[in-house]
Amino acid sequence: MKAPNFDPIIGRELIGRVRELARHSDSTTNYTRTYLTPAHQDASRRIAQWMREAGMAVRVDAVGSVLGRYEAAAPGAKTLLMGSHFDSVRNGGAFDGVLGILAPIACVAELHRRGERVAASIEIAAFADEEGARFQTSFLASRALVHGAGAIRDLVGRRDAEAIPLAEAMRAAGLDPSREFAGIDPATLAAYVEVHIEQGPVLLNEDRALGVVTSIAAGTRHLVKVRGEAGHAGTVPMPLRRDALAAAAEMVLAIESRCSAGGSLVGTVGILEVKEGTGNVIPGEVQFTADIRAADEDTLRDASQDVFAKCEAIARRRGVAIEVVAKTHGVRAVPCAGWLQDRIAASIERVIPGAPARRLPSGAGHDAMILAEVTDVGMMFVRCGAGGVSHNPSETVSEDDAALAIAALLDFLRHFDR
Amino acid sequence: MKAPNFDPIIGRELIGRVRELARHSDSTTNYTRTYLTPAHQDASRRIAQWMREAGMAVRVDAVGSVLGRYEAAAPGAKTLLMGSHFDSVRNGGAFDGVLGILAPIACVAELHRRGERVAASIEIAAFADEEGARFQTSFLASRALVHGAGAIRDLVGRRDAEAIPLAEAMRAAGLDPSREFAGIDPATLAAYVEVHIEQGPVLLNEDRALGVVTSIAAGTRHLVKVRGEAGHAGTVPMPLRRDALAAAAEMVLAIESRCSAGGSLVGTVGILEVKEGTGNVIPGEVQFTADIRAADEDTLRDASQDVFAKCEAIARRRGVAIEVVAKTHGVRAVPCAGWLQDRIAASIERVIPGAPARRLPSGAGHDAMILAEVTDVGMMFVRCGAGGVSHNPSETVSEDDAALAIAALLDFLRHFDR
Repeated sequence: MKAPNFDPIIGRELIGRVRELARHSDSTTNYTRTYLTPAHQDASRRIAQWMREAGMAVRVDAVGSVLGRYEAAAPGAKTLLMGSHFDSVRNGGAFDGVLGILAPIACVAELHRRGERVAASIEIAAFADEEGARFQTSFLASRALVHGAGAIRDLVGRRDAEAIPLAEAMRAAGLDPSREFAGIDPATLAAYVEVHIEQGPVLLNEDRALGVVTSIAAGTRHLVKVRGEAGHAGTVPMPLRRDALAAAAEMVLAIESRCSAGGSLVGTVGILEVKEGTGNVIPGEVQFTADIRAADEDTLRDASQDVFAKCEAIARRRGVAIEVVAKTHGVRAVPCAGWLQDRIAASIERVIPGAPARRLPSGAGHDAMILAEVTDVGMMFVRCGAGGVSHNPSETVSEDDAALAIAALLDFLRHFDR
Repeated sequence: MKAPNFDPIIGRELIGRVRELARHSDSTTNYTRTYLTPAHQDASRRIAQWMREAGMAVRVDAVGSVLGRYEAAAPGAKTLLMGSHFDSVRNGGAFDGVLGILAPIACVAELHRRGERVAASIEIAAFADEEGARFQTSFLASRALVHGAGAIRDLVGRRDAEAIPLAEAMRAAGLDPSREFAGIDPATLAAYVEVHIEQGPVLLNEDRALGVVTSIAAGTRHLVKVRGEAGHAGTVPMPLRRDALAAAAEMVLAIESRCSAGGSLVGTVGILEVKEGTGNVIPGEVQFTADIRAADEDTLRDASQDVFAKCEAIARRRGVAIEVVAKTHGVRAVPCAGWLQDRIAASIERVIPGAPARRLPSGAGHDAMILAEVTDVGMMFVRCGAGGVSHNPSETVSEDDAALAIAALLDFLRHFDR
């Protein structure tokens, strides 16, 4: 087996930049960078500076995303768009999003240093808002890039926790919330490619640095309300109880069991609340969330139907009432384009010889889902250290893995000729 | 089958008094009467008045309990103590406690009206604090009656939600928190008998008005902490998860299953909390309470051991950590004296002919547990309407059942000759 082919120094530099950018945080104690805060604007300027140092022409769009452009070898070439987001969740991980901005910049810097250009113009989008933690505006920046001003028109009145309207935050950051602007012209695009930390343990557990995303999972979120009958914990015999928590516990296990059928399917009960829970009172009312995802919609639909049919059966058998409320609209599965999967895989295999690249679905949502509305998308995953945790301060990528990601992406760019 | 033998008018009067007393509430919207509030002192005075009208000599003890005495037919007789509490839980039910004060008063009033006295002196204790909702002082009043000033010495510094110390609340109510007083002399007591609403659905479901309590359940309360690993709900495959909530759900069902073995055993998870629960995050930490009770201590011990061994096994299999903390000291089971059970049963059977009286354990704690430290105790349960709910505004007793309780208790008093 041949050794991987990469420059360890370039990985160390990338990790250094990720750590430097994480210091631009809304919080003094953790990494939190939300849309249009002073820390967010500082990060925007730092990214723009790195883009310029990499030989790119830089502009800031109407919603504050930073776009750097590196022209193709020949005029008239289409644009290969790459990127990810530089906002974060609260108390987040430094690599989420940022890696997908800084790795492409490192590639362009390397091309620029060597005087190379490739078959496509490269544009790197540093999206200003994807997590939407401040104004509850997931994917705002990529939606604005794809669809233009219409994508944010209904959002500018939203207020943050301090009741500051989004429009006012935009004006304070030098942006004009009433400005009209068009979405990107799909005819100019060759594809969109996003590098992202895996945010899970699959590559880590299989000892692989990089992976090729096959699709971004479809998902549904439901709120399940279970109503039984409260009663004194000491005085109601077990056969006479209609315990809402015991019923909910059985439903939690039914969700876990059905969603363990294999493949990309996952199911999670992340919130469960006993209403007015007291140690010596039989729970009368329980609410829980059910988050179900799968790489394809048939799998998701079948699993969701089975799960809620099972929950209804549990409720009937136990004599409790159940109400299942769709909490968010289902997210459709977004397949990554086959040709991009194959090219990313080929690049990974050239950089890490000896085995076919691992292909895996993405359970998390990414800006690529929005770009998929107008162009083919591909994604490369980078191994997530620390047990695979993400959205968490211990989220990490190793220097070697960062270097391998840059090497594979650079290989991909040099072979890109659509 | 002979018809029950009772006076319906006397039941209506008793329910009227229960409802009247419930209007002395700390709250304008529900029935809440906590220790030494103005409403509590008004209720105390109303009870004293009813005792006096029933021909009783009345005194208020050092902690505010109201004691009414009706002398025996002959001098030198022992005292049959009866009673219950007139404080409540917050948003409680009007019958809990109060029924066990007003039913004996109604019996004495009837004896007094007819010029009857019985073989024992009757003393009715209206205990000022049993629920302990204001100062977290369960059974304060019966402990003080049984053990004297030493029982409250460590409690007088406790503060209510408005930071008022118990000692100050006592002084404001005309009581002296530093007063020395002795506990009751056991040699003077023939027994203690408490009438109480069942607080459960057993009598209701079996269509019986009254029951004989066999024992007051032993109980334990534990706090169980489960630690797994938090993770992104979309990105961690099911087989790699260590979901603290799924583990806890399995434990909840294990507790329910083991405690459904029959007899008096019951087990309840009343509180379950997902720490920092978020819909799209696999739960990393969950806490829940386990309340297990049984009429005898062997059953309780065996069930508790089995339950926590099962929880440990679930934790091991799922790779999560578990910590089981005893939250409150276990309460020992208190058997009701066989001779009192038999006499209460005989009285019920004379009033409601045709079937042996139903004997059942009490899952809830009562002042009788404290009195059992110095004398034999017996308890009569009265059917709980509204599905058997208690500690709840819909707690109810019918007029006929109240009349039957008075009739049975009066029969018991007339036959009491120990």
